[in-house]
Amino acid sequence: MSINRIVLGVEYDGSRYQGWQTQPNGKTVQDALEIALSKFANQKIQTVCAGRTDAGVHAVEQIIHFDTELRREMYSWVNGVNAFLPGSIAVRWARELPLDAQDSQFFHSRFSAFSRSYHYLLYSNPVRSPLWDGRAGWFFRPLQLELMRDAAQYLRGELDFTVFRAAACQAKSPVKHMYEVNIRQQGDLIVFSLRANAFLHHMVRNIVGSLIFVGAGRRDPDWIKTLIASKDRSLAAPTFMPDGLYLARVEYDPKWNLPVANNENLPYGLRF
Amino acid sequence: MSINRIVLGVEYDGSRYQGWQTQPNGKTVQDALEIALSKFANQKIQTVCAGRTDAGVHAVEQIIHFDTELRREMYSWVNGVNAFLPGSIAVRWARELPLDAQDSQFFHSRFSAFSRSYHYLLYSNPVRSPLWDGRAGWFFRPLQLELMRDAAQYLRGELDFTVFRAAACQAKSPVKHMYEVNIRQQGDLIVFSLRANAFLHHMVRNIVGSLIFVGAGRRDPDWIKTLIASKDRSLAAPTFMPDGLYLARVEYDPKWNLPVANNENLPYGLRF
Repeated sequence: MSINRIVLGVEYDGSRYQGWQTQPNGKTVQDALEIALSKFANQKIQTVCAGRTDAGVHAVEQIIHFDTELRREMYSWVNGVNAFLPGSIAVRWARELPLDAQDSQFFHSRFSAFSRSYHYLLYSNPVRSPLWDGRAGWFFRPLQLELMRDAAQYLRGELDFTVFRAAACQAKSPVKHMYEVNIRQQGDLIVFSLRANAFLHHMVRNIVGSLIFVGAGRRDPDWIKTLIASKDRSLAAPTFMPDGLYLARVEYDPKWNLPVANNENLPYGLRF
Repeated sequence: MSINRIVLGVEYDGSRYQGWQTQPNGKTVQDALEIALSKFANQKIQTVCAGRTDAGVHAVEQIIHFDTELRREMYSWVNGVNAFLPGSIAVRWARELPLDAQDSQFFHSRFSAFSRSYHYLLYSNPVRSPLWDGRAGWFFRPLQLELMRDAAQYLRGELDFTVFRAAACQAKSPVKHMYEVNIRQQGDLIVFSLRANAFLHHMVRNIVGSLIFVGAGRRDPDWIKTLIASKDRSLAAPTFMPDGLYLARVEYDPKWNLPVANNENLPYGLRF
């Protein structure tokens, strides 16, 4: 019986989970998803994801894969599995890719990814917002967008991001290629969008924390340049809260023919 | 010692509460707010609201008032009380109005209100969205906006809304004046905005349920006209889920000089 690789686009609200990765006694997104998949498939299913998100971090579109000889319609992998999932997690789409052991180029959700996009949503207002509780970071002092945009230029390109790396980070190299850093505002919401080939542990939250220092006038924009050169984590701002962080998209070679994320579906109807 | 009437604008995520109104053993928004107010003021404080919301229903801006001889800065009524509140509830602003017992025209959050505005957010997509879980209703079949807009015209004006009234409704009269019914779409989100002098129990959710019947092609737009004339609740569609319902605004005479709600702060950054 031939084995196929099933690829799923998965959306989740991470505020009630201890992150993506399975834990012995933890309530994680991977645990909930694998329980639902295994119930639906009536066999144990283990998944691999494109980007392991931390506790409290959300996904507009996480990409996962697993292998099975089971044959099901793609809409069944969506609706059937969703019936076993809580409201905070859903499979949005499914694709079946042929898995040929002779072909070393088969699809892998993590290793085939060209880049990852993260969004950080920040509620910028003197008073916190319950409707954004757990879904956006909050900063109560005024922020100057132009200063943060000036600072963001130093984050683009192939750089050693050691200064924004958590101590627990397991990445082989601190050098990552940052393709995009955009900062946009809509009403009281500021959205930081970052796209890189890969991210270090806590990298987005550490970058956002330091950009907020700049936006609040506590540091000059070129402080970011100094920080990166220093490679000293203790000099950067504290890690910002996870609430506003979303894995928004993972980009692959178009040859895999995966659905292209609907950019109109930014978290909570935001669009720019 | 003179007594002042304090007016608060309150925002909440109702998904974890059994509605606004205090209950003996219930977890309600009013209970949580009065506990926080009483702790802050170091005296028992009882509140009156503009519109009692049901279990699972949210507020972009609920208006409440209470009387006290206590003198505090307005920013203290905001920040001080918020320190005692959970993340799902916050005081957004406070005003102090003189309370003159000789003047029968003093402000009352409920009786002084000219009108209430509710928004119903509906996620319209074949697959449910975890990022909207508890925050928007969901309908998985395609909906035709134009049909729902045609139907909405029959809801405007001074009408007997008995057909959309819950059995438990305590209102003196089923006749309400509907000033506005707007239906707008942004991506996969449909927002129903209704403004009336007052609403019956479950009225918005019953109206939305019936408009969805029309949008899905199960009924013609003029069915709404027939429904209203029938005054027979059993003929209308079932009450739609509370998840997408927001008390968005309460309108008062400008003489009270209350803050005007920031329309850019629709739930989740939506704006039109």
